[in-house]
Amino acid sequence: MESEELNIAPPPEPQPDPETVSRNRHEAEWKEHVLTLLREERTAELVGFLNDLYASDVAHLLERLDFHEGRRIFLLLDPEHQGEVLHEIEDNLRERYLEDILEPEGVAKILVEQASDEAADLLEEIDIEVVSEILSHVPHEDRVKVTELLSYPENTAGGMMAKEFVAVRDDETVKKAINSLRKMSKESDEIHNVYVVDKLGRYKGHVRLDKLILARPQTKVKRIMEGELLPIPVLTDQEEVAQYFTRYDFITAPVIDEAGALVGRITVDDVLEVIEEEATEDIQRMGGVSGEEKLTSPLLRSSLQRIGWLGLNLATAFLSAAVIGLFETTINQKVILAALMPIVAGMGGNAGAQSMALVIRNIALGELSQGNTARTLRREALIGLINGLSIGALTGLAVFAFTGELALGGVIFLALLFNLVVAATAGTLVPVFLRRINIDPAIGSSILVTTCTDVMGFLAFLGFAYLAISHGMI
Amino acid sequence: MESEELNIAPPPEPQPDPETVSRNRHEAEWKEHVLTLLREERTAELVGFLNDLYASDVAHLLERLDFHEGRRIFLLLDPEHQGEVLHEIEDNLRERYLEDILEPEGVAKILVEQASDEAADLLEEIDIEVVSEILSHVPHEDRVKVTELLSYPENTAGGMMAKEFVAVRDDETVKKAINSLRKMSKESDEIHNVYVVDKLGRYKGHVRLDKLILARPQTKVKRIMEGELLPIPVLTDQEEVAQYFTRYDFITAPVIDEAGALVGRITVDDVLEVIEEEATEDIQRMGGVSGEEKLTSPLLRSSLQRIGWLGLNLATAFLSAAVIGLFETTINQKVILAALMPIVAGMGGNAGAQSMALVIRNIALGELSQGNTARTLRREALIGLINGLSIGALTGLAVFAFTGELALGGVIFLALLFNLVVAATAGTLVPVFLRRINIDPAIGSSILVTTCTDVMGFLAFLGFAYLAISHGMI
Repeated sequence: MESEELNIAPPPEPQPDPETVSRNRHEAEWKEHVLTLLREERTAELVGFLNDLYASDVAHLLERLDFHEGRRIFLLLDPEHQGEVLHEIEDNLRERYLEDILEPEGVAKILVEQASDEAADLLEEIDIEVVSEILSHVPHEDRVKVTELLSYPENTAGGMMAKEFVAVRDDETVKKAINSLRKMSKESDEIHNVYVVDKLGRYKGHVRLDKLILARPQTKVKRIMEGELLPIPVLTDQEEVAQYFTRYDFITAPVIDEAGALVGRITVDDVLEVIEEEATEDIQRMGGVSGEEKLTSPLLRSSLQRIGWLGLNLATAFLSAAVIGLFETTINQKVILAALMPIVAGMGGNAGAQSMALVIRNIALGELSQGNTARTLRREALIGLINGLSIGALTGLAVFAFTGELALGGVIFLALLFNLVVAATAGTLVPVFLRRINIDPAIGSSILVTTCTDVMGFLAFLGFAYLAISHGMI
Repeated sequence: MESEELNIAPPPEPQPDPETVSRNRHEAEWKEHVLTLLREERTAELVGFLNDLYASDVAHLLERLDFHEGRRIFLLLDPEHQGEVLHEIEDNLRERYLEDILEPEGVAKILVEQASDEAADLLEEIDIEVVSEILSHVPHEDRVKVTELLSYPENTAGGMMAKEFVAVRDDETVKKAINSLRKMSKESDEIHNVYVVDKLGRYKGHVRLDKLILARPQTKVKRIMEGELLPIPVLTDQEEVAQYFTRYDFITAPVIDEAGALVGRITVDDVLEVIEEEATEDIQRMGGVSGEEKLTSPLLRSSLQRIGWLGLNLATAFLSAAVIGLFETTINQKVILAALMPIVAGMGGNAGAQSMALVIRNIALGELSQGNTARTLRREALIGLINGLSIGALTGLAVFAFTGELALGGVIFLALLFNLVVAATAGTLVPVFLRRINIDPAIGSSILVTTCTDVMGFLAFLGFAYLAISHGMI
């Protein structure tokens, strides 16, 4: 056995404790430990160590190893742990593991150990033909659940929910509820409530587990039932689901079909994921990269997507260049205009970005709707006016101070005032409009708003300058 | 009584059902209903209707009424509901309600009905002298809890946690645990676990409520205890707390002090709030508005904050203007340069924003750390190179096609190639650097990166053009 070898080896290094290890995002130290065990083929030790780790930490580790080493480690895990790791790992690796490493039987073994929602999530990433082969290895009961979940669009309550919940009829007793709970408790560790339905299976309310513990077995559940969880229709968009959870502080919520029948439950950890995803999407899309791009995404794919975006911006940049081109003679008469004109366009861009960020975020949070669009527009336009006056005056004075030309200062003052009002208006209306025609405002707004502020900025500044020159003021 | 009046009145309109009402974000219809009840002084009906509403919906309503009407409605609520509404309502109104409407005794009545964490949150917004007066009206036990919570910095685990949790010793029985649960269950509806501690009060593990229900009363809790909840040190930053919850899918987590003693619990609904707040902060700060600005923030305050940001940008815009000013003669020789130069600066700005958005988001998610900064920089620089080559070539060809001047196309190609690599590098390094010196990268990055791409863009394009002109190529 290995113990003989250990007798002559130096005393073993202190084993990192998995719990301490998990708090350490750098991982350098226990990654080394895992690799050592792997290379020295101390398999039993390695399996023990891996089993003590959280799935998300294993996933994080696999993302940082080369594929061959990661594969060896992954295959050492039991199917339940494999499923959890696949759920946490990044998309590219998940695809490769599911398609290249695992046989359909292997995937089926994993699915059986997963909650129905996570099983469905995994299947969603596999080719449809392979899916039916995989499902043929899955017991009937699980197959029915997963197939139902796959029938809902991914970004809806139906796509988020799980089928593992406890439901009892309102005229049944606490004792009956506890019996149902006993059965489900073996299958799922995410039971936070017992749901109550009527004879037709329609959702009526829920019973908190602490109330269930404290009630007498003969009590009817309807007596300890509470009503404040809002049942969520199965086709509700995931962003709206997230808004319910944050607005009402839900930990879990029942999902119902058109007839009001209870069909699933959503827990807050799925909502957390949605909220982070949506925020990532918004931030990255506002910056002009795909919502799905990760630090580890294939380089050429990312590059291509970004070029698409830059290309669009390039087209609008040529539009601005054409506007400037109209004023070549004006610039030739007064070349300092060329140095000053980016100030007007740039300040417009900055002010537009301010309105836009506020508006896009409040649309996402559900705080900006038809009811308060007009008020928001007035607010932003007024801020644009005030800021246009201040920034315009400041710039005008600075230009006067540097050049000694009062009229030039006046021209840039007027152009900035005009452009900052344009910026505030466009920064508000463009995202609102995009949202109304069902385009994500985070994607299209910045390019449209910047085009506005660039074109209007150049046009206003050079146009006013042209007028001033033609009246002999400059 | 009112029923007499109703006999001659038209049949009452169908009452909106509070549950249906809550799903409707526009609220127009039930807002009218509430206002009608208020104006007709049908107080009992109004109180009944309000009590059926969710606190967050009442808060939303109050935000949309004028202050005087909102005040009347608020004072009709019982102290528990008042507290919940204050927790959900926007900051400005909360301040006014707490300071102008409620006497210290009124606030004390509210505090007693709140969970300790929410009570502490309310007190955090009140003047310190008033706080001690309020606390003198609060029973000793609650006062001790709240005072302890107030002693932790707001943005830490200690500032997020509540003192309402159930803890039993590991050698105690399930029966004892249920008795402790019974006591706490009256105080709090947020009990999802029973925590287990050793004789010294140090956190050992937790028992799920479903396990507690299913276990026999004589069983020792250590036999059904689980270990996978990571205890969170009390001074952990709230962003890190949020990362724990999302990474490990926690619903609740124990908080421990330096000695490992259990001192509180955090539930996921508080984490949801933190995650949304942090995302809002990042999105708005990236756009150049304060992370705290709301659609309803006082206009002049918002305007002033935004002017500050625009002023900084103005200073850097003058820097770019100065760079352009260096090349006045060059532009005078070839005025089309003035039309083309914003393209180079603008595309650099766009490309910089792409790298920046990806990097800032991944820093916030904890995905970008010292371990993978170098790899990320290489990836971004390479994308910058590829995109610089493509966008540069595309632009160069377009310029050649429009102007017939090959050398001019070459100049803009080189300038774009150079500037897009600068953009990718600055877009990666600036946020990483700001984070390392503990400045939020969402605040400072965009101005620094844009300054880089503007200055470098103008310098490269006009510099190359100068060289080409002086060699007689243009």
